Amino acid sequence: MSLIVQKFGGTSMGSIERIQNVAKRVAKWHRAGHQVVVVPSAMAGETNRLLGLAAELSDMPDPRELDMLAATGEQASSALLALALQAQGVDARSYTGWQVPVKTDSAYTKARIKEIDGQRILNDLNADKVVIVTGFQGIDPEGHITTLGRGGSDTSAVAIAAAIKADQCLIFTDVDGVYTTDPRVVPEARRMNVISFEEMLEMASLGSKVLQIRAVEFAGKYKVPLRVLSSLTDPEIPVEEEIVSGTLITIEEDPSMEAAVVSGIAFSRDEAKITILGVPDRPGIASGILSPIADANIDVDMIIQNQSVDGTTDFSFTVNRSGFKQAIKVINEVVLKNVNAREVITDDKVCKVSIVGIGMHSHAGVASKMFSTLAEEGVNIQMISTSEIKTSVLIEDKYMELAVRALHKVFGLDQETTDEE
Amino acid sequence: MSLIVQKFGGTSMGSIERIQNVAKRVAKWHRAGHQVVVVPSAMAGETNRLLGLAAELSDMPDPRELDMLAATGEQASSALLALALQAQGVDARSYTGWQVPVKTDSAYTKARIKEIDGQRILNDLNADKVVIVTGFQGIDPEGHITTLGRGGSDTSAVAIAAAIKADQCLIFTDVDGVYTTDPRVVPEARRMNVISFEEMLEMASLGSKVLQIRAVEFAGKYKVPLRVLSSLTDPEIPVEEEIVSGTLITIEEDPSMEAAVVSGIAFSRDEAKITILGVPDRPGIASGILSPIADANIDVDMIIQNQSVDGTTDFSFTVNRSGFKQAIKVINEVVLKNVNAREVITDDKVCKVSIVGIGMHSHAGVASKMFSTLAEEGVNIQMISTSEIKTSVLIEDKYMELAVRALHKVFGLDQETTDEE
Repeated sequence: MSLIVQKFGGTSMGSIERIQNVAKRVAKWHRAGHQVVVVPSAMAGETNRLLGLAAELSDMPDPRELDMLAATGEQASSALLALALQAQGVDARSYTGWQVPVKTDSAYTKARIKEIDGQRILNDLNADKVVIVTGFQGIDPEGHITTLGRGGSDTSAVAIAAAIKADQCLIFTDVDGVYTTDPRVVPEARRMNVISFEEMLEMASLGSKVLQIRAVEFAGKYKVPLRVLSSLTDPEIPVEEEIVSGTLITIEEDPSMEAAVVSGIAFSRDEAKITILGVPDRPGIASGILSPIADANIDVDMIIQNQSVDGTTDFSFTVNRSGFKQAIKVINEVVLKNVNAREVITDDKVCKVSIVGIGMHSHAGVASKMFSTLAEEGVNIQMISTSEIKTSVLIEDKYMELAVRALHKVFGLDQETTDEE
Repeated sequence: MSLIVQKFGGTSMGSIERIQNVAKRVAKWHRAGHQVVVVPSAMAGETNRLLGLAAELSDMPDPRELDMLAATGEQASSALLALALQAQGVDARSYTGWQVPVKTDSAYTKARIKEIDGQRILNDLNADKVVIVTGFQGIDPEGHITTLGRGGSDTSAVAIAAAIKADQCLIFTDVDGVYTTDPRVVPEARRMNVISFEEMLEMASLGSKVLQIRAVEFAGKYKVPLRVLSSLTDPEIPVEEEIVSGTLITIEEDPSMEAAVVSGIAFSRDEAKITILGVPDRPGIASGILSPIADANIDVDMIIQNQSVDGTTDFSFTVNRSGFKQAIKVINEVVLKNVNAREVITDDKVCKVSIVGIGMHSHAGVASKMFSTLAEEGVNIQMISTSEIKTSVLIEDKYMELAVRALHKVFGLDQETTDEE
């Protein structure tokens, strides 16, 4: 018997029939003797419907009231799932975030979980109940309802799993696991059986959108084994089969993982580059440029400052494409008033490609293999940034697919060559 | 400055535009210097939509989960009203039942309010906020969400008014007050400016459906002045005009009320009569007949036992028409096994007409005036029941309108004769 947390997204909860399918899947685990906590999202479309009503009333709606409003979506879907489970003959009970309680800070619409009291959940599990806990929401120190922001249900599930010391947290999604890269770009992409938390963090933040990044951080911090698996299989698939499906995100460095130096190739088109040429090379210049950008709430990703020549230097950085226009405005209106510069060059026809692998830090020559592979394909590298377990390059975006495919192949990730499944 | 609780029903909250109108109305009171607590229902149709989803999942849905589900309707409408008020420049904050808290027993779907802590509401009022509290719901001693049953928002509003010692509780509805009888039956029916709690109770329970009867009981018990008024007037109607509109339900016996011996005529078609002829006249016979009916959860209204003749008597009572068929079944299957009887006669072509007035108990001859009026119109009286402030008769239902109009006229309620407004 194990203690399992299962999270289902809005699509899985999107209709009465789908809720009944979720109930069948959960009931199967309960019948097999496992203790199950389910964390459902709101029914697909419901959160948008509610926030749409709020938008009709106000251009700048009060975040506290938005959370009060949005939290109803998960409360309703949780109660419906309890009813669906009871209709399957399973004793089930739903709880809101405040009932557990899931304690958060007071940052409405993007609150962070501070503490979860698992006792109420454990009491019900020990009474042979399936426990359903609303995802996405909690209660702040003053007793107000908070939400964790879009996608927060993943984080709720992991945090609850940590609080009750669950054996595993299963994230059911519409993909069947984490792939070495996006299969739409590289048909030979392979589903990984196992990936480390660190690698998953890099894969997620670099654009392989499977799991909310905060959920992965949380799982790593509290050592919660996390499994991403498909919610589209037959709900009656045997438990023994389901528990080994998908991709396990693990804390332990699996000996078998050592084999692969590079685990996956991540990429993102959501990049734009800004280069400021001929700025004086003196202390404080970086913050003189980047502080006004940060003040405008624009996220900066890669940052490069070149070697100084004749007392001036070139300074480049990338931002999300959504922040591109505003960043240019901030540079013209604020930065260039404080910082002398010869010229500003901008480019939003760029993309970022990264190789990720926990084995990289102990293997020399991985980065240079990446650079030579791109050179052979005639791809010019504009910027480079590195960390312990990843190397990222910024390239012209028309070369993205070409680069990803070449790297996927050269690092032995193609299905034909290393299919260990 | 006064402290006012305002309740708005689902129709008033039925769309974004209507919520904006409610906000305008409330904002006007706030601007005029009053402290306002608003108790909204769910948006029209929302509770039915939610319960419809539950019905798709289960024939006998768990009442606890139904309450969890249904409570989301008022939570959403309350948050939306807060946003609408803020858009009007009014500082507003919404609370759920559990946040106040509104403490109830654990009778899910029909819980009763036990205690309300008004401190949180009062603190916000003193900080110049409009406070919005979800109607219809509360929290039980174990921290589960409860609802008060259909129409419970009236009761919530009155209970909150009692807890914070409000000066008045305004129930905004789609009628503009309480009438001497139903204007659809008697076009001359007159809106009353004032009515006593006792009269209102009789009027409400006898079929003048304006206010939930539990709300009236609550208001009488805790001496909360209650006003029923229209939500269909221009929201910008001056406060001084609005506060004297509609009908005030008062604790005090207003001297001006003495004038009218009969305040109103109530009636109900929801009646069916069962008569058991020739039952032995011995102790225990009434409970022998009525206990099985009560055990089947059928409400009995009027009860009459005739003078015994030759050791047997005739026993008549009325039930709601919805319970009629089951009552007959219970009589045939249970009662007649325990009680000897000559014959059972049933009739669902009956109605009840009542005259109600707090002045009745000090005026002789009111009942006989009722009987003689009906006799003059050729209406035969089948059953009579009386209380301190009302006299009810059961008559053939085809005479209902005729009887109501005649009584309305003879007791001086017609608009032409006593229009004091």
